[in-house]
Amino acid sequence: MKKTIIGVMGPGETATSVDLENAYQLGQLIAKQGWILLTGGRNIGVMEAASQGAKSAEGLTLGILPGATSLGMSEAVDIAIFTNLGNARNIINVLSSDVIIACGMGAGTASEIALGIKQQKTVILLNNNLESQVFFKSLSPDRVYIVETPTEAIETVIYC
Amino acid sequence: MKKTIIGVMGPGETATSVDLENAYQLGQLIAKQGWILLTGGRNIGVMEAASQGAKSAEGLTLGILPGATSLGMSEAVDIAIFTNLGNARNIINVLSSDVIIACGMGAGTASEIALGIKQQKTVILLNNNLESQVFFKSLSPDRVYIVETPTEAIETVIYC
Amino acid sequence: MKKTIIGVMGPGETATSVDLENAYQLGQLIAKQGWILLTGGRNIGVMEAASQGAKSAEGLTLGILPGATSLGMSEAVDIAIFTNLGNARNIINVLSSDVIIACGMGAGTASEIALGIKQQKTVILLNNNLESQVFFKSLSPDRVYIVETPTEAIETVIYC
Amino acid sequence: MKKTIIGVMGPGETATSVDLENAYQLGQLIAKQGWILLTGGRNIGVMEAASQGAKSAEGLTLGILPGATSLGMSEAVDIAIFTNLGNARNIINVLSSDVIIACGMGAGTASEIALGIKQQKTVILLNNNLESQVFFKSLSPDRVYIVETPTEAIETVIYC
Repeated sequence: MKKTIIGVMGPGETATSVDLENAYQLGQLIAKQGWILLTGGRNIGVMEAASQGAKSAEGLTLGILPGATSLGMSEAVDIAIFTNLGNARNIINVLSSDVIIACGMGAGTASEIALGIKQQKTVILLNNNLESQVFFKSLSPDRVYIVETPTEAIETVIYC
Repeated sequence: MKKTIIGVMGPGETATSVDLENAYQLGQLIAKQGWILLTGGRNIGVMEAASQGAKSAEGLTLGILPGATSLGMSEAVDIAIFTNLGNARNIINVLSSDVIIACGMGAGTASEIALGIKQQKTVILLNNNLESQVFFKSLSPDRVYIVETPTEAIETVIYC
Repeated sequence: MKKTIIGVMGPGETATSVDLENAYQLGQLIAKQGWILLTGGRNIGVMEAASQGAKSAEGLTLGILPGATSLGMSEAVDIAIFTNLGNARNIINVLSSDVIIACGMGAGTASEIALGIKQQKTVILLNNNLESQVFFKSLSPDRVYIVETPTEAIETVIYC
Repeated sequence: MKKTIIGVMGPGETATSVDLENAYQLGQLIAKQGWILLTGGRNIGVMEAASQGAKSAEGLTLGILPGATSLGMSEAVDIAIFTNLGNARNIINVLSSDVIIACGMGAGTASEIALGIKQQKTVILLNNNLESQVFFKSLSPDRVYIVETPTEAIETVIYC
């Protein structure tokens, strides 16, 4: 039977230290719930931190890679899906996640949030970027949630 | 030699009457410049209006369709690219446009703007959606332009 | 650390009863090795039979779905990757499999074998279609293996 | 109104001199019919030769590129569609062509022929590779045509 998959999306090179701490905790908390963690699979930024967090709690990690090979892949990824689709893989991240948690902000993350809204997914924003909160909430008042901590994000997944 | 392609992106079903008027004019002005118009190719909303506008000025129109067949395709599309990729085709729209003009706003349009910024394209916003203007300008102060009329959008393409 | 993934590819609606028996056994044998089974994820043909076989041996099953939702998905899929890419997902199946076993033959399967050869993957053919054996062996004498039973296919995976 | 698009597909680096001559002539003949030529858009092999042939007869050329930029693109491509999808773009080539002419043979070409058959397209084989002729004809006796010259290929497009 299909297992629950929670996607954590966020910046690579431009992640802040707060983003990385949040991502690590999100990975841990997702693993403790028995959910599979989905990320973009790279060995950098929010992807790396969330995957490491999930492994620290003995979770299962899924990486949807932009490239064709394991070059640049996080070593904390258990199941690697190689797409060679570049940013076109973002739609796969969105469609394969039961709920999407956006941790931090950037252009790639914004595209995933927008696609998530378009696909009528629940999207949880964990950042301190007011402009993004106002904009995405205006696009989808009912399906976009704004939270302040990883714990609050997980509670939102459970009760949404 | 590669011809210049200008992408006009905007809502389908949810386009406003102002969006449709602007899109029609954009299509006309793009055709008059001798540029090729690129849209998502459907027979609705901004895609349909821009394609009709371009044909009214005897331009060449390119449609990057989400489906595998001509079902739902604008009759004003000259060159149909069938992708069957759904929203994953958005990245093709972005990569194949020399400049992107977003006419109106919605979740799909937002994903294209975000991808355009990620790919370091010039993106021109023609709408009255303040939240989107503030957010996308914050993501890329240098490459995002905000304009008020189709004519101003074309001038921005020429001088950017 | 990345787990080993073995892809089993073959016809959906047009699978023969021999294909289905072989696919079920392949799924069982892959699970018994501790490998993850990758299929196209649909509830029909070789995809369904292989996934059921793997679950009968308590394996982990991965389905790379052509659509955006669980409609038409095998209930024996544990981890569902929704691509909404139609047949463009075939390249993901190929890239994400450490070795590809083609069970039966058809146009879709042939496209996956050809892509596997192009990507320099090991491809194992388990069928009685002489034309396909001759053709694909001519395309890649060194990386295409022809086997007669599921057991022989697994032995080839181990020793190739 | 949608224009007719004929796809010419064949090897890049591994094209033979006969393949290149045939591709150049196919491009010329397609242009003379007023059809648009579609290729994979690269500056090598059958793609380059067919595009050059079409331009020599003042045709319009469409290139569906595997990458995100014009690096490695044929200078004979008028309309460049940048996909950044790698080989996943093959399905776009197939879906966007009214008829597919395979000129020469290789793994990539084989994947496009197989996808063409799967999508119920007319596929014309122009090569001297007997194994491929026998195999693809067995997959689709009615929609696969085997021809010996570019002229015969064009006649088959007209009368099929």
